[in-house]
Amino acid sequence: MSGQGISPEEVVSLCQTPDTSTRDFMFQQTMYRIKDPRKSIPFYTGVLGMTLLKQLHFPEMKFSLFFMGYENPAEIPQDEQARSAWALTRKATLELTYNWGTESDDSAYHNGNSDPRGFGHIGIWVPDVETACVRFEQQGVQFIKKPQDGKMKGLAFIQDPDGYWIEIFTTSVV
Amino acid sequence: MSGQGISPEEVVSLCQTPDTSTRDFMFQQTMYRIKDPRKSIPFYTGVLGMTLLKQLHFPEMKFSLFFMGYENPAEIPQDEQARSAWALTRKATLELTYNWGTESDDSAYHNGNSDPRGFGHIGIWVPDVETACVRFEQQGVQFIKKPQDGKMKGLAFIQDPDGYWIEIFTTSVV
Repeated sequence: MSGQGISPEEVVSLCQTPDTSTRDFMFQQTMYRIKDPRKSIPFYTGVLGMTLLKQLHFPEMKFSLFFMGYENPAEIPQDEQARSAWALTRKATLELTYNWGTESDDSAYHNGNSDPRGFGHIGIWVPDVETACVRFEQQGVQFIKKPQDGKMKGLAFIQDPDGYWIEIFTTSVV
Repeated sequence: MSGQGISPEEVVSLCQTPDTSTRDFMFQQTMYRIKDPRKSIPFYTGVLGMTLLKQLHFPEMKFSLFFMGYENPAEIPQDEQARSAWALTRKATLELTYNWGTESDDSAYHNGNSDPRGFGHIGIWVPDVETACVRFEQQGVQFIKKPQDGKMKGLAFIQDPDGYWIEIFTTSVV
């Protein structure tokens, strides 16, 4: 059966009914490492339109965390502790981890799409892929695939400042 | 300034006001590759309590996609095309990519937490970390860190069948 994949029926049979104790579980965050917040913060806010939900700094361990997401900035609590609780209970946040000093060393982070593979991408749903990509081009964003390239018309892959892949798609295209 | 990090004020100054054209953008998916859906589907449903939102098979390219998330199964549209559109517009889904045959080869996917590093983890908010972890232990889940281990008390890291890290946390702990 190797290389034959799996039937839809077998997949359905593999699905277990969620335990009631998991009812309030939330897919809250996706974390990856960034070399330089001076590049990443402008990209995720200015290009992708996310908001900085919360920043956390850990001087003793020399790293910082930036939680990004699509939330209304007007809803951000003024109190920093309340802001932490709020940010950590928003669905679908991106947690950017910055280990201090990485911006000035020669290392690069691995985006998972060449060996050794694993992680692939994050994906942003947009109302109109063409419109979004025209704007990204104007902003000098790196493209892995433009909407008109390849077999899968209508979806694009761009790269963040570290080279992580970001799929840009809309409802009509998987 | 290398190794000194970045000040909270500078981070704020780096934040750009989202363009109005990004207003409806949605952080819809996080994709990583899995070796064997016969292990991953039971894990994400039976252990983490997610629901299979949609499965897609591409025989000509020998891969399948499984969209997982925390949604009410009763809301899944019956019609498969409607189901695709529904699944691809849910916030915070996990897209598992299965390249056919990987379950029987010797390769392992890379979780990003050893060299070359990059991706770190996904994170699930739970109402009570201890309760969740007791259940995970009973289910034989692999732990990277139990709630009582290390400096950051009250949060845990578990591993999925491919070794990807999953943070288990609640509001009180970042």
